[in-house]
Amino acid sequence: MDVVNEGDYILLYLDGRRSFLVEATDRVFHTHRGYLKLKELIGQPYGSQVKSSIGVEFTLLKPALRDFILKKFRRPTQIVYPKDAGLILTYTGIGPGFRIAEAGVGSGALTAFLAYYVRPTGRVYGYEIRSDLIKIAKRNLSQTGLMDYIELKLKDVREGFDERDLDAVVLDLPTPWEVIPKAYDALKNSGVFVSFSPTINQVEKTVETARAYGFVSIEAVECLERHFKVKAGETRPETVMIGHTGYLVFARKSLKST
Amino acid sequence: MDVVNEGDYILLYLDGRRSFLVEATDRVFHTHRGYLKLKELIGQPYGSQVKSSIGVEFTLLKPALRDFILKKFRRPTQIVYPKDAGLILTYTGIGPGFRIAEAGVGSGALTAFLAYYVRPTGRVYGYEIRSDLIKIAKRNLSQTGLMDYIELKLKDVREGFDERDLDAVVLDLPTPWEVIPKAYDALKNSGVFVSFSPTINQVEKTVETARAYGFVSIEAVECLERHFKVKAGETRPETVMIGHTGYLVFARKSLKST
Amino acid sequence: MDVVNEGDYILLYLDGRRSFLVEATDRVFHTHRGYLKLKELIGQPYGSQVKSSIGVEFTLLKPALRDFILKKFRRPTQIVYPKDAGLILTYTGIGPGFRIAEAGVGSGALTAFLAYYVRPTGRVYGYEIRSDLIKIAKRNLSQTGLMDYIELKLKDVREGFDERDLDAVVLDLPTPWEVIPKAYDALKNSGVFVSFSPTINQVEKTVETARAYGFVSIEAVECLERHFKVKAGETRPETVMIGHTGYLVFARKSLKST
Amino acid sequence: MDVVNEGDYILLYLDGRRSFLVEATDRVFHTHRGYLKLKELIGQPYGSQVKSSIGVEFTLLKPALRDFILKKFRRPTQIVYPKDAGLILTYTGIGPGFRIAEAGVGSGALTAFLAYYVRPTGRVYGYEIRSDLIKIAKRNLSQTGLMDYIELKLKDVREGFDERDLDAVVLDLPTPWEVIPKAYDALKNSGVFVSFSPTINQVEKTVETARAYGFVSIEAVECLERHFKVKAGETRPETVMIGHTGYLVFARKSLKST
Repeated sequence: MDVVNEGDYILLYLDGRRSFLVEATDRVFHTHRGYLKLKELIGQPYGSQVKSSIGVEFTLLKPALRDFILKKFRRPTQIVYPKDAGLILTYTGIGPGFRIAEAGVGSGALTAFLAYYVRPTGRVYGYEIRSDLIKIAKRNLSQTGLMDYIELKLKDVREGFDERDLDAVVLDLPTPWEVIPKAYDALKNSGVFVSFSPTINQVEKTVETARAYGFVSIEAVECLERHFKVKAGETRPETVMIGHTGYLVFARKSLKST
Repeated sequence: MDVVNEGDYILLYLDGRRSFLVEATDRVFHTHRGYLKLKELIGQPYGSQVKSSIGVEFTLLKPALRDFILKKFRRPTQIVYPKDAGLILTYTGIGPGFRIAEAGVGSGALTAFLAYYVRPTGRVYGYEIRSDLIKIAKRNLSQTGLMDYIELKLKDVREGFDERDLDAVVLDLPTPWEVIPKAYDALKNSGVFVSFSPTINQVEKTVETARAYGFVSIEAVECLERHFKVKAGETRPETVMIGHTGYLVFARKSLKST
Repeated sequence: MDVVNEGDYILLYLDGRRSFLVEATDRVFHTHRGYLKLKELIGQPYGSQVKSSIGVEFTLLKPALRDFILKKFRRPTQIVYPKDAGLILTYTGIGPGFRIAEAGVGSGALTAFLAYYVRPTGRVYGYEIRSDLIKIAKRNLSQTGLMDYIELKLKDVREGFDERDLDAVVLDLPTPWEVIPKAYDALKNSGVFVSFSPTINQVEKTVETARAYGFVSIEAVECLERHFKVKAGETRPETVMIGHTGYLVFARKSLKST
Repeated sequence: MDVVNEGDYILLYLDGRRSFLVEATDRVFHTHRGYLKLKELIGQPYGSQVKSSIGVEFTLLKPALRDFILKKFRRPTQIVYPKDAGLILTYTGIGPGFRIAEAGVGSGALTAFLAYYVRPTGRVYGYEIRSDLIKIAKRNLSQTGLMDYIELKLKDVREGFDERDLDAVVLDLPTPWEVIPKAYDALKNSGVFVSFSPTINQVEKTVETARAYGFVSIEAVECLERHFKVKAGETRPETVMIGHTGYLVFARKSLKST
């Protein structure tokens, strides 16, 4: 049976609104529902319940990557959310074995999703122009154990990517259209181009530039996610939702006159 | 440079609305824009353009898994779409190395996504109660080269799964709530439960049953995807969209009194 | 030119996020951007700018009904929002001259919209079971000057409506299906039935009951509204949106075997 | 009891997907479910059922304005849909007594909604640059009995509106931003400006121009409408939905430096 080992990250699940990502070390974790001595979690089976100092039950869960990103990552920049990362994967086929360049890394959320899914033989080359963000991304990513699949680079991709014949280039930049020629050079033929942008104007410029530069199969997509309150006889969508994170542009490199 | 080999599946891309998934064999492929002798594609670099008999250009792209599913799979049943498969991945962390049971397989679309992403060390045990669907799913999945990661089983999962300590159980069944005790038994502690259902009533029963049975961290989510027509100065969402495919329920197995 | 008269309600517009509905009387109105002596607004033309004590400009606008409802109504109950009220109007044709029964009145938001649009010859009979809510609704509605078109009634509509041959019956009740026979009796032939409910279960019961009771042309609709941040080159939807208010059920009375 | 009179327009309701708007005259109406002699409907009570030649039941309903627009209007141009017309009403307070200029009239759908709701004392001045559309709009609107409240004008509003001190100006034009100065001149202080546009670029230009020209309280909104298939135990949204009609811009005229 799977039990908590010293140093494990654990998701302490309280209820639908509250759960906490902690490390099983010699520390006391305080919540508004009492405290837990985290060392005492060691040896407990995953899935089991523990009680706080005031008797409130928490369930010990293994955190998923999403939990690390949403609960543990420092986020000085807007991150790419699971719904959008999911669409990137299934729209493009980015998966085990892919060699990908990503720019800009920012807080590293998308980097983490990409690295997680290219394992064990793929690799993510993560470009970021700000050294402070590289540091934060590195710290964030280290907690996930994914750094073996990631190479972080402090560089302005407008000067080009170091790699060639990449399976995919993924951009999360303010001016992605400026990088399209460099993305083209770095991609293998028929390779995957992805760009994430919060504004529709960025989408427009990116699509127009990609089209002019010989990319084909261009799609612009937005993904909305709705959560439900489910209870017998009282089921309804949540009142407040995230109405927008960003738009995704997908394209494929062709050998058209460029 | 990557070139088309005999027997390769190729995506013949015409424009944003039309592309065709074909095999590079000794066959003639007819479109409303002229025909192509597919044998002549062999040796052409991916990403390059070929002309049909009437001079219309098609681009040779490597198909992604999504292309196989949407263009090549026979679909006697409703399939799980990329947007929903993407959410399943990033919400749960289903990825390389996961051992998953899926029921029912249907046309095999979700099976394909799961198998693709658990590669190379994971495995999908695909249950289906109808032998005719098993056959179709097998044929569909064989085209994708993913059968090495899949074991299809003709069995009613209301009688239980054969596996234990699974990382995840994924249901796409008319009455998923009936299978919850069996899913619980098959899952490892803290393991991932997923259910996809078209109606809100199914969601309600599934969530209520899962809650009663000791599952925690239960979420019910819907994912809407919107495509855009992008053109400088004339950008707008598509007029017609898919307004609904289904709802997703996510949960985690706890050791709560069951 | 239209100027502010003593006693007028005025919308003091500051910016896209902040505006205030005040009365032009001998009072000082304090904001975080300085105070305004409201008496000094009297005689100013609508549309003009006034400065607060610290020199911040506010624009004097005539409030629309929506402003009264969203900014001035006391709301002990959830209200029907403009988007849903709008759909009620244009789906059903509720308009000038309609005689309508509404139950329950609650805070009076929907009552206000209905009364506003049945003017000058129509009438809204507003039923409410709680006397405390009747009082609040009356106070809310009095500010809008619409009480001439409204008759508020403290009564449980499960015992029936007092009126006959109504053009429309509009329900905003926890158990609307219980009232369907009474709505049927109160409506004229081919008359309009509307029900607003937050949960999908209410919708299901209401539709099933209405169908069984001889209503036809039954529709269930949900309306989502998205606001945009518009700025040249940086246009995007708002990050947070109201993801749900409620569902609308529309139907028409037929003379089918009931 | 309300009965069908000769010349009445009647909505022949068959089921949730099919209903027909016909005139009670000496004509035979053919459907795929048999024919009806429309003259025989005269004298029947509204809400009652009639049988076609092959015994299929239709219900006689009084058409709402929406039925005329969606079923009877000739539509050479894209029309403004009920959901958007509803938002225009409840967001702005356009209602009984309003004097409104609308440009361009197109097929007259929005003109009809506006005229219906400004009755009996308001008026809609409908501008249209194309004489062919004016003719079609006139024919469409005549069926609704609303022409008493409408004045159609063949004129390019870039040259200005004939009216002054209008309560509202409503634009449905390809380049609404060009008309903003003329809308400003035609509006009374604090008056309502509305613009409907299919593309986000039009919204951007309209908002930026309105802002520069002294309009305040500017909002850009999109309204999505979702229909449900409701059946006990099988309730779900419709698979296909209208994903986009257009965006609405709302603003108010201020006396700011223009």
